Amino acid sequence: MAVIGRIPVLDVTPAVDAGRWPARAVVGEAVPVRATVFREGHDAVAATVVTIAPGGGERHRVRMDLLEPGLDLFGADVVLDELGRWRFRVEGWSDPYGTWEHDAVLKVAADVDTELMLEEGAQLLERAAGARDRSTAHAQVLRDAATGLRDTSRPAQARLAAGTSAAVHAGLDELPVREMVSRSAELQIEVQRPLALTGAWYEFFPRSEGAVVDPVTGEARTGTLRTAAERLDGIAAMGFDVAYLTPIHPIGTSNRKGRNNTLHTEPGDPGSPYAIGSPDGGHDAIDPSLGTFEDFDAFVARAREVGLEVALDLALQCSPDHPWVSAHPEWFTTRADGSIAYAENPPKKYQDIYPLNFDNDPDGISREVLRVVLTWVQHGVTLFRVDNPHTKPVRFWEWLIAQVNERHPEVIFLAEAFTKPAMMHTLGKVGFHQSYTYFAWRNDKEGLTEYLTELSGRAADYMRPSFWPTTHDILTPYMQYGGRPAFELRAVLAATMSPTYGIYAGYELVENVARPGAEEQVDNEKYEFKPRDWAGAEAAGTSLAPLLTRLNQVRRAHPALQRLRNIRFHATDSDQVIAYSKRLTAAQSPTGHDDTVIVVVNLDPHGVRETMVHLDMPALGMDWQDGFVAHDLLSDQTWHWGEHVFVRLDPHVNPAHVVHVRGI
Amino acid sequence: MAVIGRIPVLDVTPAVDAGRWPARAVVGEAVPVRATVFREGHDAVAATVVTIAPGGGERHRVRMDLLEPGLDLFGADVVLDELGRWRFRVEGWSDPYGTWEHDAVLKVAADVDTELMLEEGAQLLERAAGARDRSTAHAQVLRDAATGLRDTSRPAQARLAAGTSAAVHAGLDELPVREMVSRSAELQIEVQRPLALTGAWYEFFPRSEGAVVDPVTGEARTGTLRTAAERLDGIAAMGFDVAYLTPIHPIGTSNRKGRNNTLHTEPGDPGSPYAIGSPDGGHDAIDPSLGTFEDFDAFVARAREVGLEVALDLALQCSPDHPWVSAHPEWFTTRADGSIAYAENPPKKYQDIYPLNFDNDPDGISREVLRVVLTWVQHGVTLFRVDNPHTKPVRFWEWLIAQVNERHPEVIFLAEAFTKPAMMHTLGKVGFHQSYTYFAWRNDKEGLTEYLTELSGRAADYMRPSFWPTTHDILTPYMQYGGRPAFELRAVLAATMSPTYGIYAGYELVENVARPGAEEQVDNEKYEFKPRDWAGAEAAGTSLAPLLTRLNQVRRAHPALQRLRNIRFHATDSDQVIAYSKRLTAAQSPTGHDDTVIVVVNLDPHGVRETMVHLDMPALGMDWQDGFVAHDLLSDQTWHWGEHVFVRLDPHVNPAHVVHVRGI
Repeated sequence: MAVIGRIPVLDVTPAVDAGRWPARAVVGEAVPVRATVFREGHDAVAATVVTIAPGGGERHRVRMDLLEPGLDLFGADVVLDELGRWRFRVEGWSDPYGTWEHDAVLKVAADVDTELMLEEGAQLLERAAGARDRSTAHAQVLRDAATGLRDTSRPAQARLAAGTSAAVHAGLDELPVREMVSRSAELQIEVQRPLALTGAWYEFFPRSEGAVVDPVTGEARTGTLRTAAERLDGIAAMGFDVAYLTPIHPIGTSNRKGRNNTLHTEPGDPGSPYAIGSPDGGHDAIDPSLGTFEDFDAFVARAREVGLEVALDLALQCSPDHPWVSAHPEWFTTRADGSIAYAENPPKKYQDIYPLNFDNDPDGISREVLRVVLTWVQHGVTLFRVDNPHTKPVRFWEWLIAQVNERHPEVIFLAEAFTKPAMMHTLGKVGFHQSYTYFAWRNDKEGLTEYLTELSGRAADYMRPSFWPTTHDILTPYMQYGGRPAFELRAVLAATMSPTYGIYAGYELVENVARPGAEEQVDNEKYEFKPRDWAGAEAAGTSLAPLLTRLNQVRRAHPALQRLRNIRFHATDSDQVIAYSKRLTAAQSPTGHDDTVIVVVNLDPHGVRETMVHLDMPALGMDWQDGFVAHDLLSDQTWHWGEHVFVRLDPHVNPAHVVHVRGI
Repeated sequence: MAVIGRIPVLDVTPAVDAGRWPARAVVGEAVPVRATVFREGHDAVAATVVTIAPGGGERHRVRMDLLEPGLDLFGADVVLDELGRWRFRVEGWSDPYGTWEHDAVLKVAADVDTELMLEEGAQLLERAAGARDRSTAHAQVLRDAATGLRDTSRPAQARLAAGTSAAVHAGLDELPVREMVSRSAELQIEVQRPLALTGAWYEFFPRSEGAVVDPVTGEARTGTLRTAAERLDGIAAMGFDVAYLTPIHPIGTSNRKGRNNTLHTEPGDPGSPYAIGSPDGGHDAIDPSLGTFEDFDAFVARAREVGLEVALDLALQCSPDHPWVSAHPEWFTTRADGSIAYAENPPKKYQDIYPLNFDNDPDGISREVLRVVLTWVQHGVTLFRVDNPHTKPVRFWEWLIAQVNERHPEVIFLAEAFTKPAMMHTLGKVGFHQSYTYFAWRNDKEGLTEYLTELSGRAADYMRPSFWPTTHDILTPYMQYGGRPAFELRAVLAATMSPTYGIYAGYELVENVARPGAEEQVDNEKYEFKPRDWAGAEAAGTSLAPLLTRLNQVRRAHPALQRLRNIRFHATDSDQVIAYSKRLTAAQSPTGHDDTVIVVVNLDPHGVRETMVHLDMPALGMDWQDGFVAHDLLSDQTWHWGEHVFVRLDPHVNPAHVVHVRGI
């Protein structure tokens, strides 16, 4: 008849929409479990988090700490070390030993009921000693303590001490006396592989790699999957984890877009790879100019050799030339005049694109997309960057991702949804492993702090951010006008604020010229070939590759940077200097060692900034008066830092400190 | 396989712990239903709230407004007009007419696809006209509009206008074309009688009313239920709704407390009525010195005659002399030496009280308490003020209140739990109709604003506050040192901020002398008789009864003050002057008329304060530049007010304005 338990256990987290969806974690991640647990009166209450591994069977049984007494908030971290769907619950319980100890200390000191209190303690410890599962050694400790409590030859305080010794506590910590055990409902956590949370992505257009453009005639020869594969060494050398290819499918010719998104093409214009489908095939085909499936397999194999996984674009839209248009006209919207509807943003029409209509034949279209995705998975693709998922039904994605992951749990989906928060958050809830974010538009201290606080809070239970300073479609004014320092400092922010970040090819070369009036690059690579002289830039010392390489090294060496929930901000006296840290305690870190990194960034790409930084020392695992050795992982300098630190950041020399905290 | 609907519908409120408990409302209350509803792409989406009345059967079907486009937040109010357990859901749906209208307006203006758009509109309206349940008149309107859209003899804009006319909108508002209808889960709302949310309580010790104390000898004669009944006229005349009696049961003599909570009694000390139980009986008995059940019935009958309901204290603790102690020793805690445990706050012991132990025989004790409660209900008690519910198991209360309300849905329980938020909120969730609050300790502008914002937000779904400026146990320093102005302004705050408030007898006489070092009155009425000269004070013009009377009149006349969720704060330039308003629109108000009240209070009981008040005019249902007639319901003055108002509040003359907003 009562809904609540004997000991109320409420607000258990992580919980996504009260358990409608599982929360997310990755293998080895220390997941913070929290609950509000309290009871009537003044007796002691405690809480335990219990986990059940994917195969069944209890795995953890961890006593939770009372984190905020005023809020009755209990918490414990559990490290989930196996892929799959975990379950967990919180048990609230009455703690008779805690009650007794609290009262006995006060009453014996005041000599109130002294004999009675000591006898009650002895009886309690004797009962505890007899618990099933209690080790013989610990049972003896508890019985000896009971004897000590009853030893009337000794002073009362000595007897009390016998019943409250460290050995007694150790025995009861191992196996507490739990009464009125009250379970929360079970919640779920889907544990995925680490790359679902943490990775460095590198985006490029394979046709640009190895493309040759005659500087005089403008005539171009496309790069191919074979020439693109030659770039993999360079990407791997910079320390990236994922090579992400824009679409490689046949491109339509109907209303093909020309350079800079113009409505007419010049001979040789390759068209946008997002206008998918031609007589050569659709989403399950490779554009013949790029190569064959054999070439693709070779590309994937080479990627694996150098330690890269391959991500493919999944852009579910069609050129009018797509094979689906004739085979399945019902997958598109037919208008009153019998024509197929173009994509529109009224009154504008995009006549190179037919959007899919998922409602006429949802099953047919879903099965076909699943087939397409599985085709690429069979060819070694392990990640999909999904183009505009917010223009397709959310439930379609929930179904598709579940279908794919049921067969291939390793496959990761990244949502490219730059839209309103409800859609972005819900795409995360229903299954997307990662999400593009508003990071590119958060350039000031307040905006970054607020956004990271949101992302690393409750949202971290289901939405994993991917931070991209630029993409082939995004070049913000900050990047257009901030010069090389903007590219440097935004790379540092992206790589250290978010466990997953991404770089679009050309970033190394500070490609920052915009199409006039637009927030994207001039000569957008979507519409033309962009061969780049990587080696030349590196030789000239103008490439940002060394910085990216260093950042990726630092990310790999420091598990604290591989997590999202652990970011903490620190005060600075300048509104242009942001300071934050990430820390994993030894218990939270896969290495078993405490790892703490402090990042201080000058957000002003134009001027030197000097400021005091005021470190929240407890957030760094230290006391307020402690000092430490600060090792700058970018410059390799070391300093002695404490709570208050002076920093001077010259954007043209060192826009940021990325500091590893070392003991003295 | 997918958990989400075709149109996502998330975050539906009111929901208490995601539906674990029903939300609360009272008959006639306009309940704000909110939901996040969105869809893929750019097509129009809409939402409907559907309610199901307690007897079954859909009652409302209200189209929701898009309140915050950026958050995809939809909302509508539903007025629940029947007692019992309502259900509701939100339906998200695709709105093809909205989509067509949006696109057609833009495209016809740009002459893009003009004929096609008009034809598609015509087809859509023809389809809508054929809907089942469509009235013949409206169907004809829609068919005529289709004809107009197709009338090629007229200009395109005129044809478009035919398809987007007010008549078409009216027809479609009545019965929209809804596609992809997606239902949320059902949630519940328990609708209770208005007194559960709104009422004015008056607390008194019946034995003090009619008691006579000899000023020379100190000898006292107790008041009785018969003499106490004589006070009911006065309480009713002040406009209170509830007469709340402290416990009337036999009082124990073992370790009876003397005056001012001393450990020894003088002859004639009546003892604390909270030390319940003697050979004369326990919780189901009346102290013989107060009278008989016949007297009690007469008291209740008289209360009803003058329009008052009777609330009784439910204090589940026992004197050592309580009949339960011998009949059911298992209902108490037996210590290791065989004695029964006293109440304690270690190292302090309270030897006049045995606390109940609910865990030895939970069923037995629960049944007995239910029997006790039902006994008083049978004698006409309709409300219980529950003493210290936070020292008894929460699940016991959930069970007890459900049992009582199943038999007597009119019975209201008020929780006297001055404790941490988790317990206070949970007692509300599990069934308490009302809760005492921290109001007595919120005396400054920031504290009051923050607290009311919390109480009137999500918490209002399950926790109804009761505001008491003082009680027989609470006399804050603010009241001790603020003189008569403090009593006046705190009465105004309590009566206008919270729908339910309470006054402890003697407030009229500004009884503000504290026991030294304590935050309660000297000569606490718990331990002695306190006869008061009501008539004398009124004759002398020193009584606050006229102010309380006026406040209760104002509360009855203004439905806006009978609600909690509708409070809004307004800026003032003084940190000592607080301004807030409550408003019900015509649709929200049981009277069918807009009702808006503005309250401005000087929180400084010692000095005159002058300030500008800056009214949030839209929150008052007006435009920024509007003016209105402000009628002060306390002073009966009227002024012309607008956005910026100067006020001068002299605590010794008029500590507050309670202003009714009238049109000009």
